[in-house]
Amino acid sequence: MREQSYRDPVHDFITLRDPLFLDLIDTPEFQRLRRIRQLGASYSTYHGAEHSRFGHSLGVLWVMIRILERFSNIGIDIPQEWEVVAKAAALLHDVGHGPYSHALEGTLTPGLGHEEWSRRVILGPGPLHDRLRAHREELPTQVADVIAGIHSTTPGFISQLVSSQMDVDRMDYLLRDSLYTGVTYGRFDLTRLINTLQVYDDRIVCVAKGIGAVEEYLLARYFMYWQVYLHKTTRSHELTLVRLWRRARDLWESGALTAAQVPESLVPFLAGTPTLPEYLQVDDHDIAYAVKRWQQATDPILADLAYRLLHRKLLKPVYKVPVTQVPHARLPDLEALLERKGWDPQYYLVVDDVSRVAYDLYAPHAIGESKTPILAFDELGHPREITQLSPTMRALAAGTRVAVNLFVPLEARDEARALLTRR
Amino acid sequence: MREQSYRDPVHDFITLRDPLFLDLIDTPEFQRLRRIRQLGASYSTYHGAEHSRFGHSLGVLWVMIRILERFSNIGIDIPQEWEVVAKAAALLHDVGHGPYSHALEGTLTPGLGHEEWSRRVILGPGPLHDRLRAHREELPTQVADVIAGIHSTTPGFISQLVSSQMDVDRMDYLLRDSLYTGVTYGRFDLTRLINTLQVYDDRIVCVAKGIGAVEEYLLARYFMYWQVYLHKTTRSHELTLVRLWRRARDLWESGALTAAQVPESLVPFLAGTPTLPEYLQVDDHDIAYAVKRWQQATDPILADLAYRLLHRKLLKPVYKVPVTQVPHARLPDLEALLERKGWDPQYYLVVDDVSRVAYDLYAPHAIGESKTPILAFDELGHPREITQLSPTMRALAAGTRVAVNLFVPLEARDEARALLTRR
Amino acid sequence: MREQSYRDPVHDFITLRDPLFLDLIDTPEFQRLRRIRQLGASYSTYHGAEHSRFGHSLGVLWVMIRILERFSNIGIDIPQEWEVVAKAAALLHDVGHGPYSHALEGTLTPGLGHEEWSRRVILGPGPLHDRLRAHREELPTQVADVIAGIHSTTPGFISQLVSSQMDVDRMDYLLRDSLYTGVTYGRFDLTRLINTLQVYDDRIVCVAKGIGAVEEYLLARYFMYWQVYLHKTTRSHELTLVRLWRRARDLWESGALTAAQVPESLVPFLAGTPTLPEYLQVDDHDIAYAVKRWQQATDPILADLAYRLLHRKLLKPVYKVPVTQVPHARLPDLEALLERKGWDPQYYLVVDDVSRVAYDLYAPHAIGESKTPILAFDELGHPREITQLSPTMRALAAGTRVAVNLFVPLEARDEARALLTRR
Amino acid sequence: MREQSYRDPVHDFITLRDPLFLDLIDTPEFQRLRRIRQLGASYSTYHGAEHSRFGHSLGVLWVMIRILERFSNIGIDIPQEWEVVAKAAALLHDVGHGPYSHALEGTLTPGLGHEEWSRRVILGPGPLHDRLRAHREELPTQVADVIAGIHSTTPGFISQLVSSQMDVDRMDYLLRDSLYTGVTYGRFDLTRLINTLQVYDDRIVCVAKGIGAVEEYLLARYFMYWQVYLHKTTRSHELTLVRLWRRARDLWESGALTAAQVPESLVPFLAGTPTLPEYLQVDDHDIAYAVKRWQQATDPILADLAYRLLHRKLLKPVYKVPVTQVPHARLPDLEALLERKGWDPQYYLVVDDVSRVAYDLYAPHAIGESKTPILAFDELGHPREITQLSPTMRALAAGTRVAVNLFVPLEARDEARALLTRR
Repeated sequence: MREQSYRDPVHDFITLRDPLFLDLIDTPEFQRLRRIRQLGASYSTYHGAEHSRFGHSLGVLWVMIRILERFSNIGIDIPQEWEVVAKAAALLHDVGHGPYSHALEGTLTPGLGHEEWSRRVILGPGPLHDRLRAHREELPTQVADVIAGIHSTTPGFISQLVSSQMDVDRMDYLLRDSLYTGVTYGRFDLTRLINTLQVYDDRIVCVAKGIGAVEEYLLARYFMYWQVYLHKTTRSHELTLVRLWRRARDLWESGALTAAQVPESLVPFLAGTPTLPEYLQVDDHDIAYAVKRWQQATDPILADLAYRLLHRKLLKPVYKVPVTQVPHARLPDLEALLERKGWDPQYYLVVDDVSRVAYDLYAPHAIGESKTPILAFDELGHPREITQLSPTMRALAAGTRVAVNLFVPLEARDEARALLTRR
Repeated sequence: MREQSYRDPVHDFITLRDPLFLDLIDTPEFQRLRRIRQLGASYSTYHGAEHSRFGHSLGVLWVMIRILERFSNIGIDIPQEWEVVAKAAALLHDVGHGPYSHALEGTLTPGLGHEEWSRRVILGPGPLHDRLRAHREELPTQVADVIAGIHSTTPGFISQLVSSQMDVDRMDYLLRDSLYTGVTYGRFDLTRLINTLQVYDDRIVCVAKGIGAVEEYLLARYFMYWQVYLHKTTRSHELTLVRLWRRARDLWESGALTAAQVPESLVPFLAGTPTLPEYLQVDDHDIAYAVKRWQQATDPILADLAYRLLHRKLLKPVYKVPVTQVPHARLPDLEALLERKGWDPQYYLVVDDVSRVAYDLYAPHAIGESKTPILAFDELGHPREITQLSPTMRALAAGTRVAVNLFVPLEARDEARALLTRR
Repeated sequence: MREQSYRDPVHDFITLRDPLFLDLIDTPEFQRLRRIRQLGASYSTYHGAEHSRFGHSLGVLWVMIRILERFSNIGIDIPQEWEVVAKAAALLHDVGHGPYSHALEGTLTPGLGHEEWSRRVILGPGPLHDRLRAHREELPTQVADVIAGIHSTTPGFISQLVSSQMDVDRMDYLLRDSLYTGVTYGRFDLTRLINTLQVYDDRIVCVAKGIGAVEEYLLARYFMYWQVYLHKTTRSHELTLVRLWRRARDLWESGALTAAQVPESLVPFLAGTPTLPEYLQVDDHDIAYAVKRWQQATDPILADLAYRLLHRKLLKPVYKVPVTQVPHARLPDLEALLERKGWDPQYYLVVDDVSRVAYDLYAPHAIGESKTPILAFDELGHPREITQLSPTMRALAAGTRVAVNLFVPLEARDEARALLTRR
Repeated sequence: MREQSYRDPVHDFITLRDPLFLDLIDTPEFQRLRRIRQLGASYSTYHGAEHSRFGHSLGVLWVMIRILERFSNIGIDIPQEWEVVAKAAALLHDVGHGPYSHALEGTLTPGLGHEEWSRRVILGPGPLHDRLRAHREELPTQVADVIAGIHSTTPGFISQLVSSQMDVDRMDYLLRDSLYTGVTYGRFDLTRLINTLQVYDDRIVCVAKGIGAVEEYLLARYFMYWQVYLHKTTRSHELTLVRLWRRARDLWESGALTAAQVPESLVPFLAGTPTLPEYLQVDDHDIAYAVKRWQQATDPILADLAYRLLHRKLLKPVYKVPVTQVPHARLPDLEALLERKGWDPQYYLVVDDVSRVAYDLYAPHAIGESKTPILAFDELGHPREITQLSPTMRALAAGTRVAVNLFVPLEARDEARALLTRR
């Protein structure tokens, strides 16, 4: 019998025997995830966070397998066909991620997020698509639909497991990112959480006495969000990277940057929208290689931003403690200040409003399939939204924290700070 | 050089070189803590929780040592004399605990809690007192005062480290109880918490960016409180134990129980208030021995309660989900029901109002020295109470959870439940 | 569906649904294991090692369940009936242990080890026996036989899993004792070890590439043996306890100790061989209670030994580093020395030859069912004894370490040491 | 006060306050280590092993700091000046590593290993050298000498801590690689090991009772060596990479590969020996970028090897179980076989003799400064080599394991296997 054990720092042994999944893992599309860091530039804050989307994707598959096994143990029968869809969607949900994950998403291919690229990879053509289809004609479409949250032939609770406020993706990444960063905040009790899950009326609902497990999970999310994902050094690194690419594109569009000065794999990204094969050619290495190369660029802004990224001379936050709203009224003065000092504000002033970033806190009334509220049974056995049952979660969801900061070169920070704090 | 390393499951190596502490640990008074379980009857819910107050007390000393080292590293100078008081108070704060810790506190020696017994042990006479005094004449008094929260010659921040809302006692026991029970809730980042502490105006204040560490600690407390310390099976076991002892005392007072039927070490506890040496003779083993022996008691209630404790036929909760207030109006009916069925409600009806138990949540406005609020610096460098800075903690402190339950014999539970839920 | 999760510090969740095992765990015979420490007096060296045989027994059941699940996953089909025998034998293998486990085994009931008592408990009568028999008439006998290593109707590989050089008992206790003592030596990779196991010709054989896992397990055993189980302070505590009991028995036999001076549950142990119910009445608490009480005994030796045990004035090793053989020629002089100083050598001189203790290293040619050698497949697929395949294990098994020490009162140690080292 | 805490998955908080080390860490030379994987291609076997030399180097510094603190605690006084040398040597010992660490060492710059490049970086010129020199004129030379094992003005025991059979480098990497790979083998008890170290006659010697700690450390090395560092998939990946580069150089030398087809940063490596600045420009990203690009190379061998690396079509081992010597007599036949099938044996036949790789087992009689034997005190207080005191270590050192394998394309493996096994 074919059997493969992947030794995982988070889940210990991930042992697989189904040839479909062993084959999917060995496709070039999936192997490519080894070259894309899970947390973008977080490694510049937490040096241990150098892990890739490959291990995370395996981990998400594993959490799904464990949940399905649990369901089987407690008598929730799921047709084999749906199980395959659920597992494949878990494994492949991130297969469309590009370099630096969320950090450059929307920047390298404007308008095309990783979900859309995942969809394209799965719907083919290519080895991964072919392997799915060899299993069953409709499998690619079903998997793509589940990842996209589109109800097709699979039940709603499977979509919910793949993508919702409490899904297998988050269950893995909180634990994984916690381990690699070396922090404790993201740890929660995965087994206990899995053991509280039930299926009721095609939705995932937690048993009444499992509310503590959900609270623990949501608090892990809360802490990771504020302490790790939105750390100001990480944000600064990522936003500087965005500025670098924006400068390269501006130069390209004005003709000041030519193909000879760009790593060739990146040319299609500057010249328009890459094709799927062109997109899949590119990973963190291409960007890192470009950054190093552009240190010698003739354009001083491109060269300077590249130098800053490599030598950790990142833009610095103006506010010591983040503020709650963007100081729109003061921005013109700030831009003027920067221009006076020779810093083009288009590239050297970053307004970071974290309420708009990819990682989000729990919000019961959010809209869209991926925002399905978390349900638990009350003492009478009726499913209710979790904040109606837990005062702590109610408080957490209510106290929406907003954090705005501005980033400028260190050389201009003190003056910027003075400008913003004077009456 | 004399050096002793205590291998600790929580803190790894606890390495001590100061002869004073090595000697204190070897006194019979301190060694006695090996025979007193840290968590009373929790082991009946969490089978791993069989640890004693001995390891906890060592751990508390160790946390104090680490905090004092940190203070030294960041330039907070503390006279050697005060350091000794702080460490001794940390080590000895629980030295007066009796059998089953909190479970029988107030029952075995009514009116005399463990703090009072700690005070008596420290103020002597006895080997422990003598060793403290040999070090310095005033040391026993200073240590006893710090433990009692009495300001004498030592600074307030040291009292605060020993006993307050965020003290070395709690820092150790949350981690320790979490490890032994096998749960994850109690884990928080001790090093990070220690690194956030400062001394300001004779009070402990956290640095602004350390608020996350405090939040994590307080949430650990919150989860341990509800999931472990107040677990209904544990409560039932402990409350049944209280009833057993109450029955024994009632029988003793009526002359129906005589010295021949009582393990001799326990006689002074039934006959009045034990002397200090008599108190120190007794530990968990004496109670456990008595329980086993009283299975054969002639009094049917004493024998039955003993049998229930040993065979896990504990009293059962009437409410599936705890209610928010004691149903005073229904209690007479419930007592009548029990009497009708032959269960004396004095021993077989337990009203458990957990808002009155020893473990407590964070409450900023609580009264008394041990309730010193937790302070952190705001962005302007002013110390403020933590709930004013953290919306999450504000929510946690506001949402006071009350949990009331009633316990009766299994044989009467269904009728009791029906009685209480009917209109 | 009835389901019970035991939260375990070693294995996390032990989730059981089979009513047979839930019932067995709740019998008084099994619950009694909560009152018997797993490691006898080891807690006096490693303060965290206060855990009982209860958690260990649950853990052994769990390891067996995991192995059987693995077998099922890789196509090794085992009839349901045998699985029940295997699991029950795993759960109940230690049910006959008495106070302080191995420390007093052979002392309290000479000639009757814990295996014999386990057999008696299982073969009944009593609630545990009844529950087994209610499941299937022959179950008690089959379980008792498997534990005893007697081939009856169950296959040999199941006996081997329950009791052999690499059995579920050792797999659990190495991990468990390692966790509670706080050391790292006993940790090995349980999942990897389980994944290497195969059944071949009714024997357990490891796959060729799993030899590393077996090496790791055997080295864990090696380190735990020398660093924990045979630690000289633990040995001294346990051997002093043996001397105390021996003194009590000698006094009893001479009439100098009477029933009034002995905790009543222990009287049958002094008066002869206890009946099964009498045996099951007794646990660590009775011994601890007796030790405390005998501090006030009129016999000075009994009182002194009790005092030493309670106040950690244990006998001390004469050799700083253990020697390889008992110095028989010098023993008469040593005895004379002790007598001269007023110490009766019968109680105050302990010759500890650890090659004879219960915990044993791996020895491929050992005799008896419980000594089945460990087998692994060589590259040609033939099962071979592990030391023939691994040079490291060959070395480990060859280098039989012998360690002899003598223990005397501290007051006589220096003179004893001088006597033994002079030419 | 300036203070920086690096959150480390292995050591938790690495808190530094000395400006020298904070500055050294921020130099571009040191930051470059973030872009060099610690374990070369091990990530292709253990997907979690994606960590860089950056975290390892911080960890090595931290272990050194802990050892020096321990020495200070037990009264071993070391002049401040030497402590700085010891710490700087620990931090910088790997600063000269190139892409893929050991995998391409000796291939990219033949004759110049990472030690020589470390020396060049430290002796300058450059920001790192300047910072060392600003601290003290002779510091760069002293640090370089200690790393090289040259006795200059610093004591021998410091060189030994930096580079020997039991040095801070190995202490960190065993623990770190174990964590990231997810295996358990590499774990040993660091605190216990540190606590056994003494300085005697300018050498590091372990206390007698610490031999168990040394054994545990050496066994961790043994297991990591065979299970992780020399894993056959890793070896295959690394050796294929070596072949790729060799092909590129052969093509370059024949003029078939030109600068236009090579990432420009790699040109100096093909054209001769790079200068120090050219060397420091290059890291894992350049190699990874080249591999991807060379998939489209016109040379079929270069393109094929690149494709194999990216798509995990690695060369495969001919022997299922490694053999003990290279089958020299059969190699001509094997080469003929490969040629017949169209595989140039220069690139498609790899003879892997792991007795010659960088990672080494403990060997007491090895030659050279870095091979200082491990010493421990015997019972008389004389330092002796460890294998003279420990039978287990003697066996481990004696049983030198040799492992030879051959790697060929999968397409030729079965025929190669048949050829080698026929008589």
